[in-house]
Amino acid sequence: MSLHPHPQSKSVINRLARIAGHVEAIKRMAEEGRDCSELLVQISAVTSALNSVGKVVLEDHISQCLVDSGSPQQREVLNKLIEAIDKYLGTSSRRWENSH
Amino acid sequence: MSLHPHPQSKSVINRLARIAGHVEAIKRMAEEGRDCSELLVQISAVTSALNSVGKVVLEDHISQCLVDSGSPQQREVLNKLIEAIDKYLGTSSRRWENSH
Repeated sequence: MSLHPHPQSKSVINRLARIAGHVEAIKRMAEEGRDCSELLVQISAVTSALNSVGKVVLEDHISQCLVDSGSPQQREVLNKLIEAIDKYLGTSSRRWENSH
Repeated sequence: MSLHPHPQSKSVINRLARIAGHVEAIKRMAEEGRDCSELLVQISAVTSALNSVGKVVLEDHISQCLVDSGSPQQREVLNKLIEAIDKYLGTSSRRWENSH
């Protein structure tokens, strides 16, 4: 675990707070027996909001990597970035090879 | 707005409660300045959990439609189902045409 400040930290925290509140509201809708199609629309909205906050976190991660990439550890930093993208998108991609 | 019981209502409510707690935990991670890649892994896990609960709600919706589909309003019921799937998946599909 590493601790460091993120440029868009405030925005990420606010978005996550809103998402948590939105999920709570959907739970209440389910408790009230609201129509399935209404629940699906709200679940879809939360999924979009999560994707958006994921992109903001990814931007922070990329900008952090770019700051560090002037160092001799450039390849390792880029590999970490690619790993993070893989984990988030659930895809596998090739590591940054020795061509640089 | 319509109110009616759903077969898997309890499961949906429990899953949504867990998801809301998970998002709160990610917010705390962001507040602590935890690494972006850690946040991305957790955001990805919540997205998967949301997709799962969406599928459960969709199953409920389909089973409800099947219960109703013996009635003369069969075509209209199926159109509502298709609409709900479109809204959830963000896709557009053809309406259930007059071939039945």
